[in-house]
Amino acid sequence: MGVSEETKMAAEGDNASKKAAKKAAKAAEKQQKKAEHKAASGQAAPEATEEPDVSLGMYGTYKMIQSSGEHRGRVYTDVKDLSPALVGQTVWVRARLQTSRAKGKQCFAVLRQTSSTVQLIASVDQHTSKQMVKFIGNIPKESIVDVEGSVVKPVSPVASCTVQAVELRAKQLWAVSAARAQLPLLLEDAARPVNEESDAEGLNIRVNQDTRLDNRVIDLRTPANQAIFRIEAAVCRLFRDLLTKQGFVEIHTPKIIPAASEGGANVFTVSYFKGSAYLAQSPQLYKQMAIAADFDKVFTVGAVFRAEDSNTHRHLTEFVGLDLEMAFKFHYHEVLDVIGQTFTDIFRGLRDQCAAEIEAVRQQFKVEPFKFLDPPLKLEFPQAIAMLKEAGVTIGEEDDLSTPDEKLLGRLVKAKYDTDFYILDKYPLAVRPFYTMPDPNNPKSSNSYDMFMRGEEILSGAQRIHDPDYLTERAKHHAIDTEKIAAYIEAFRLGCPPHAGGGIGMERVVMLYLGLDNIRKTSMFPRDPKRITP
Amino acid sequence: MGVSEETKMAAEGDNASKKAAKKAAKAAEKQQKKAEHKAASGQAAPEATEEPDVSLGMYGTYKMIQSSGEHRGRVYTDVKDLSPALVGQTVWVRARLQTSRAKGKQCFAVLRQTSSTVQLIASVDQHTSKQMVKFIGNIPKESIVDVEGSVVKPVSPVASCTVQAVELRAKQLWAVSAARAQLPLLLEDAARPVNEESDAEGLNIRVNQDTRLDNRVIDLRTPANQAIFRIEAAVCRLFRDLLTKQGFVEIHTPKIIPAASEGGANVFTVSYFKGSAYLAQSPQLYKQMAIAADFDKVFTVGAVFRAEDSNTHRHLTEFVGLDLEMAFKFHYHEVLDVIGQTFTDIFRGLRDQCAAEIEAVRQQFKVEPFKFLDPPLKLEFPQAIAMLKEAGVTIGEEDDLSTPDEKLLGRLVKAKYDTDFYILDKYPLAVRPFYTMPDPNNPKSSNSYDMFMRGEEILSGAQRIHDPDYLTERAKHHAIDTEKIAAYIEAFRLGCPPHAGGGIGMERVVMLYLGLDNIRKTSMFPRDPKRITP
Repeated sequence: MGVSEETKMAAEGDNASKKAAKKAAKAAEKQQKKAEHKAASGQAAPEATEEPDVSLGMYGTYKMIQSSGEHRGRVYTDVKDLSPALVGQTVWVRARLQTSRAKGKQCFAVLRQTSSTVQLIASVDQHTSKQMVKFIGNIPKESIVDVEGSVVKPVSPVASCTVQAVELRAKQLWAVSAARAQLPLLLEDAARPVNEESDAEGLNIRVNQDTRLDNRVIDLRTPANQAIFRIEAAVCRLFRDLLTKQGFVEIHTPKIIPAASEGGANVFTVSYFKGSAYLAQSPQLYKQMAIAADFDKVFTVGAVFRAEDSNTHRHLTEFVGLDLEMAFKFHYHEVLDVIGQTFTDIFRGLRDQCAAEIEAVRQQFKVEPFKFLDPPLKLEFPQAIAMLKEAGVTIGEEDDLSTPDEKLLGRLVKAKYDTDFYILDKYPLAVRPFYTMPDPNNPKSSNSYDMFMRGEEILSGAQRIHDPDYLTERAKHHAIDTEKIAAYIEAFRLGCPPHAGGGIGMERVVMLYLGLDNIRKTSMFPRDPKRITP
Repeated sequence: MGVSEETKMAAEGDNASKKAAKKAAKAAEKQQKKAEHKAASGQAAPEATEEPDVSLGMYGTYKMIQSSGEHRGRVYTDVKDLSPALVGQTVWVRARLQTSRAKGKQCFAVLRQTSSTVQLIASVDQHTSKQMVKFIGNIPKESIVDVEGSVVKPVSPVASCTVQAVELRAKQLWAVSAARAQLPLLLEDAARPVNEESDAEGLNIRVNQDTRLDNRVIDLRTPANQAIFRIEAAVCRLFRDLLTKQGFVEIHTPKIIPAASEGGANVFTVSYFKGSAYLAQSPQLYKQMAIAADFDKVFTVGAVFRAEDSNTHRHLTEFVGLDLEMAFKFHYHEVLDVIGQTFTDIFRGLRDQCAAEIEAVRQQFKVEPFKFLDPPLKLEFPQAIAMLKEAGVTIGEEDDLSTPDEKLLGRLVKAKYDTDFYILDKYPLAVRPFYTMPDPNNPKSSNSYDMFMRGEEILSGAQRIHDPDYLTERAKHHAIDTEKIAAYIEAFRLGCPPHAGGGIGMERVVMLYLGLDNIRKTSMFPRDPKRITP
């Protein structure tokens, strides 16, 4: 480590303004270097003032934590674990200083760790200097601090914090990592409930989606976002665990592929050494090869890419696919029922395991709880058409459903069956991809299905054609260059069981389960035609 | 479904050669169409021969299974579950016909399901025609068949099958999906143990890696490959479960990124609408942003991309990264110890949960079992240099280890400590990326580490610099355009705890745990500079 770094770090160990401190440190560089190195012992002393400071050595800013060995034995308590059982004890807490407000001889602050908050009070007294109270009042919001505090019972419960039964009295407070003074957005604005008319000061500040995404690191700290991405992790965990228990094998499929799999539209091109390649729009062909290779039941969780210039609330150019594929004996409903039940079990798992997180999201975005049936509702396409016609929609028997039709159908199904999830089976053959198995009993229908949450499609699937000659014929019918999918077709010349499967958009599942209005709320770093940052 | 498809399917329901059958069917198309439709009831009758066939209706080829509703109630038994308890019973099995050999009035066949095999015997008798026995003998290897058979006790245990205590006597046999007669490679060749001198006929046929990969669907059916990818699934499952239990949150990071993160080398370019973008070489910057966003401990499993023209046994251009990142209080060893223990627990989990799969791999690729210590061995870089010097290697204190050095070091460590896994801490600062935290006590060292299995690196990690000014300085020192990583640096201006993490190459872990010689053996559909198919 060079001289400049060392000096810089020493300079940061100062509670004067950074610039002034740096300048001072620069001037004193050569002379003080060695002395500082010995004296600092992990912490820099606060600036001397005229008045004697009784709190000297009890507050300030740490040197950059560089794993030098100090404080290794210190035990920390999580904010969420602060409870009346600890009253009278002294604890260390590392948390963000969400707010701090010095008023005369007192400073009230809120410490936040993940989504848990606790009140911190510092008062000038025989052990606590006014310099220390001022220091706490001046720390930028969102800075990370180490606090040693006594756990005390407040006069009345602290309504503004999640920990209400106790508060902390500051004995020591050290800045671990300072946030900049001017934040690009305020957490309290980002966290404001959508239907709260105005805040305490009568203001009604909202943070728009792009500002949030441009400053995602702060935006993600809101209680709702902390919850959303934990729910998302739970969706993936439940999906995998439920399938693993039923004998599915997790596989990984390549994202770089040699040819555009589904006709060449909406695919991103990659420069691949001296040639070019494409980004996979789905793992489907590979899942199917795994079935032909005797893996019987497989799933995969991974990125899929769509070069579609759709700027809507529900389209991303990159999203996470939860894909599965399964061999069956005689009827694709053997698979359809497994998928349907998996959804039901995921919904139940979320309800039971993520109650606190779901509530945290509801605190900001008021939405009706998600309703589902067990077993799930299964309708056939003609039934859907009939329901839509009855509601006054003009639609042909072989038309695909438009997005508004789907939304309306979702409302009709909800009204009739009281479920936000249902399966729509037997889509018209004409609106499905070439590899979809036609219905043996109706040449205009197919063995394919979509699944819906709150009226939006979240899974598309089908029995796939496993006969190579018939697959070739259907590909040609769809004007697909069979040379380019030769390896795919070849897989079926080596013996392949009948199979079916589907692909689920993970972000859509989370969005619709929670009833959120935009898929960018459920993608940590979303990608759309206009955004590839941060 | 059009006329031609229906005819074609009926034609396939015939045990004459396909071409002849198709021709015949074409001719009879119009007249027979309706009759066939009614009569077939899911199965087509075998070809009539001169002699009366007592097995008529008991063998043949199914019509393409299209979910028409037949046979839905039929119960199947798994090959692995065939046991003496079932002797005297009649069971249905769906399996591949691995081999079949008609000799006079008998046909011996081996049925395979995943990795389990059982002998099937068909003998001409009052219920079984010679036509049926001949039909079974003529089915192409690797075809999928439905067999109704009696479970019987063989005269002596069937040494050539995994199910040795019983065999099946055929009552019915139907081809579900025929493999083509000339397979591109034979499963028995692909499955041959590497150090078996020659086979029963004195031949010594080997299948080279490219032939295997070109015909991956067959290659993946070997017992070793069935096991390898189940072990791989277990590695991912253990990784996630162990971390989830410790409070880690799974996240998903974008693969499409706006700028080449680590200096611009070895990165694939993507056409992104009217601009261009890149494929992420690691999720690291995003993991770190998640830490700055209060997720505290995160992991992610997903594709990472390296446009490196390395054609070696251990490089892929696309692989699966098991990445984790964790905030710590004062010392990065808090994280290092979690990672090290996670590896130990994964190794133990594999040993305990995948014993059968590991044995299946060992049957083909004889390798020593993987040895590990609990807690894992941790060495510091200077110790490694000393061991290498003692072994006669010329190497400087600040040099990175070459691949041969790493291999040698692995052997030295194994000899001295009896472990195939160890952690090497405190790499020279000069050989690590710009965001690596320098060692506070030694300016030439850093708070970084690699982890090794059988002498090959499988994880690289470090404490990251969480101070934005210092990070900027280090980036400039490495000649990195700080404009391009502005969003990354900005994350640390919003308050960020000290943190460390690492990235694991999943395919390498599986390869080295099993002691395999090529990473293409542990990637289901590997990508390298010369291969993007299938």
